[in-house]
Amino acid sequence: MRVTLGGRTRDYRPVWFDGRTRSVRLIDQRLLPHEFKVVALPDYRATARAIRDMIVRGAPAIAATAAYGFAQGAGAFRGRDPRQFTRHLDTVFRTLQAARPTAVDPVNAMNQLRAQMTATSVVEQQRQVTAAAADFANTSAAECRAIGEQGAKLIRNGMRILTHCNAGWLACVDFGTATAPLYVAQERGRRFHVLCDETRPRCQGATLTAWELAQAGIPHQVIADSAAGHLMQRREIDVVIVGSDRTLGRTGEVANKIGTYTLAVLAARHRIPFYVALPLSTLDWTLRSGRDIPIEERVADEVLGAWGVVGDPKARGRVPRRKRPVYVRVANPGSAARNPGFDVTPPELVTGITTPVGIFDPRQLWRNRRTLGGPA
Amino acid sequence: MRVTLGGRTRDYRPVWFDGRTRSVRLIDQRLLPHEFKVVALPDYRATARAIRDMIVRGAPAIAATAAYGFAQGAGAFRGRDPRQFTRHLDTVFRTLQAARPTAVDPVNAMNQLRAQMTATSVVEQQRQVTAAAADFANTSAAECRAIGEQGAKLIRNGMRILTHCNAGWLACVDFGTATAPLYVAQERGRRFHVLCDETRPRCQGATLTAWELAQAGIPHQVIADSAAGHLMQRREIDVVIVGSDRTLGRTGEVANKIGTYTLAVLAARHRIPFYVALPLSTLDWTLRSGRDIPIEERVADEVLGAWGVVGDPKARGRVPRRKRPVYVRVANPGSAARNPGFDVTPPELVTGITTPVGIFDPRQLWRNRRTLGGPA
Repeated sequence: MRVTLGGRTRDYRPVWFDGRTRSVRLIDQRLLPHEFKVVALPDYRATARAIRDMIVRGAPAIAATAAYGFAQGAGAFRGRDPRQFTRHLDTVFRTLQAARPTAVDPVNAMNQLRAQMTATSVVEQQRQVTAAAADFANTSAAECRAIGEQGAKLIRNGMRILTHCNAGWLACVDFGTATAPLYVAQERGRRFHVLCDETRPRCQGATLTAWELAQAGIPHQVIADSAAGHLMQRREIDVVIVGSDRTLGRTGEVANKIGTYTLAVLAARHRIPFYVALPLSTLDWTLRSGRDIPIEERVADEVLGAWGVVGDPKARGRVPRRKRPVYVRVANPGSAARNPGFDVTPPELVTGITTPVGIFDPRQLWRNRRTLGGPA
Repeated sequence: MRVTLGGRTRDYRPVWFDGRTRSVRLIDQRLLPHEFKVVALPDYRATARAIRDMIVRGAPAIAATAAYGFAQGAGAFRGRDPRQFTRHLDTVFRTLQAARPTAVDPVNAMNQLRAQMTATSVVEQQRQVTAAAADFANTSAAECRAIGEQGAKLIRNGMRILTHCNAGWLACVDFGTATAPLYVAQERGRRFHVLCDETRPRCQGATLTAWELAQAGIPHQVIADSAAGHLMQRREIDVVIVGSDRTLGRTGEVANKIGTYTLAVLAARHRIPFYVALPLSTLDWTLRSGRDIPIEERVADEVLGAWGVVGDPKARGRVPRRKRPVYVRVANPGSAARNPGFDVTPPELVTGITTPVGIFDPRQLWRNRRTLGGPA
């Protein structure tokens, strides 16, 4: 997507491969929205560290980063012995996998690449994996674009759209999932207003989604998570679009960032359409109940404080762009916290699942499993 | 309530009058929970400034502060001419009223004091108003105590109780409203666990309520506002108790801090009892619809940032106690915000209104208006 910095506009993805320097490039998302910086990772170990340190986050984005890192690691092998090469690839694979051990997307991505390394010579395999990594990223971007084309149908002129967290292009390879319908609708000349839940405790809505929308020139406002109910009651929200971390193909249950379930309950009460946007890789065809989805309990510090740039509260818009965020302790220092990272929304609260191949009733996913890349 | 600082325990109210120095004393709530400091206000103008600067907040607490400030101002008059005294009192009244112009409680409190100045001599009236201010504060404290005695019936051993914002003793003269049932239940030996919504954007739950509960030794955890729905879904919350800024005697609609409506919707879905605790002064017998309650739109900076003490996120419990909080900009610097301060909960979502004189169905307030101090 386009990013304008100091008056110059350029197209960016959150991750790409620079063939000349053989480095993986990442937008450092830990510094956004306060600073825009691209880091260059000279080898696969550095790429793995960047994934671990959350310079990049979001399942599709870390999958593409792992894919590029795998190709980078494969390309760095300097021998000709296929067996030594295979052992080297195993090390690269394990190093990148260990960077985010619970994430399944990097593993799937690297397995997909490996399956395309069919040549016998090492050099030819290196060529294949480099092309396969680029293909993987481009396919992922195209899938998000297709989500946008499906979802743009839902957005009419004058609509006020609520979104939660960052299911944006920074979390993907391009376009995003929940944001893709917004970007495609904007291309088609539609005018609308977005409300971004700040999404405590990590505030990805206030930081990343708001930054994305500002870059795209889409009118938007940040709201406290607890304001959505009031705004729905006052009929100031027309549709809700969120992403998903995992959606069960068998039941239609949607796991997503904490707070999603609350929005779905509120939307149902006010008869406001509630859509989930996702790529097909987010569909889990195995689990039989949302109760089986593990809900990560994250560190208390996230709830007990916040990250931001020290500044005058009256300095909106004039906050220095290059100051790094610091952590502040907001809560009573002696108090503990609970910090569930995700919640599960039942299908009866979801109007539709927006995928690259169409919008589906969440209770009809299993029936449509062939179209959706599920089991036979 | 008891406060323990550096190993010494003392009883505090958020506001009191020091007869020896003729100063109004306030706990500086802007510094809590990071620093505990009592300020001494030498004259009524300083007391008015303290109200304006929100050293003290919460309707019952600012009413008592205005009452003490009014008596302080009256006592500072050095003449004997009753007409000059009356003009002086008018000035004191207006100065204190102007400190928080939309608040009705300080005005009611000062009018109540004035009505008790029945003597003819200035000196005798000064004696009367000083006694009346102390009476006002003590009555307010007793009313909160009575809320606690009514509400303590709702709290059984092992319960997990959710509260929102700070309707605690810091906002009142003692005991608080939503917290009073907790303190009384604790006195009676009951054991329970409290979840404090952090209450973005000003985080009064994470700062003030968590500090109060820590001081009282009540087990508690802070949660992000958006986590309540998930915890209710997992049956980890047994009852919700919140305060109110204004509750309509005619309709039972409850205006309270933004996010209250969302909790009520979630509680109703999960059949979790939802109680509102309030003193009788919070009942508005005039308005005929919740739509007529003005919802204050507060400054964007609150949503776009946070106040806290700069520190290492790994330093929980070791944050230096005397460092003052700073403002950090969390959100994208170019983005705007919406910041409604309050919302309105309809009576069908409220299990009961806990008052000093009993617990009432919100739809039965009007029928019980005589018991509740309403119109004839």
